[in-house]
Amino acid sequence: MPKLYVALIHYPVVNKNGETIASALTNLDLHDISRAAKTYGIEAFLVVTPLEDQKDLVEKIISHWTTGIGAEYNPKRRSALELIRIYDSFPEALDRIAAVEGCYPITVATSARKYPASISNEKLRAMLTNGKPHVLILGTAWGLTEEFISRADYVLEPIVGKTDYNHLSVRSAASIIFDRLLG
Amino acid sequence: MPKLYVALIHYPVVNKNGETIASALTNLDLHDISRAAKTYGIEAFLVVTPLEDQKDLVEKIISHWTTGIGAEYNPKRRSALELIRIYDSFPEALDRIAAVEGCYPITVATSARKYPASISNEKLRAMLTNGKPHVLILGTAWGLTEEFISRADYVLEPIVGKTDYNHLSVRSAASIIFDRLLG
Repeated sequence: MPKLYVALIHYPVVNKNGETIASALTNLDLHDISRAAKTYGIEAFLVVTPLEDQKDLVEKIISHWTTGIGAEYNPKRRSALELIRIYDSFPEALDRIAAVEGCYPITVATSARKYPASISNEKLRAMLTNGKPHVLILGTAWGLTEEFISRADYVLEPIVGKTDYNHLSVRSAASIIFDRLLG
Repeated sequence: MPKLYVALIHYPVVNKNGETIASALTNLDLHDISRAAKTYGIEAFLVVTPLEDQKDLVEKIISHWTTGIGAEYNPKRRSALELIRIYDSFPEALDRIAAVEGCYPITVATSARKYPASISNEKLRAMLTNGKPHVLILGTAWGLTEEFISRADYVLEPIVGKTDYNHLSVRSAASIIFDRLLG
């Protein structure tokens, strides 16, 4: 069985001008990506942000839907949001996966650009059948920093549709990648 | 070349209790679905709502990103949102497509449930190669009404992931279906 984790990075990412920033949380990223993760059997959804107020916000959103009135109103939302784990940094997230799995996961960054080391969805889909833990890394804002990408074991090829427009939301990209890898 | 339109229906849809309602607009539906539509070469993104204040809201969002400061800030967003057309009703949207195409489009409803008349993504992908206009119909809230679905020419099979959880957001579902049909 494929063992895939997904991480949504709010730091370090770049802004429109290529500067490294910590991005603000988007509420619907949590909902859409956790629901897609639940649909495709993803192990956990790792939300990475070093900002204390943003971590509080994630906790509040999760709590509303998992223990608050939201849990009663919509139990399906609860079971998806329960996949979320919050971490200060990506290395901290990796340490937690290693503690659970007994080994560090293979890291796969995503980008709207192609790299010499880019691998195809078919290749990653085949790699996942070995049962080793992998973590798919999604960037917010204008994407992961080059330094971050260079440290990943692999980079997934960008999603190409029918045109040369490649500005999907991270929510759309996550959904399509899950379907290509696990659908 | 496939000629696919996508329609996002805010009326008639059902609420949690199965009652027919007009749903409220979700800002990120417009952004995410128009960006995915642009990526996959969709002809136009038809937003259907009979509510005047909601139509005004759509106009305002589009205007901000196509003629306002948003257009300057992010031209990529502009070229996606320019795909949006707003209609009072689905029949009105069909009339407009017919006026442009010279014939009425084949209608394909979507649902999280399977119907006797459901067709697979592969089948619809093959149908699209005949070059005739098709319109893929997405419901907001808890989905399209049964009566609406029964009037469509076809119903697309639900998206099945790796689990029996099928509660994707309409934004995720649209992205995955575009990729399956046109990717």
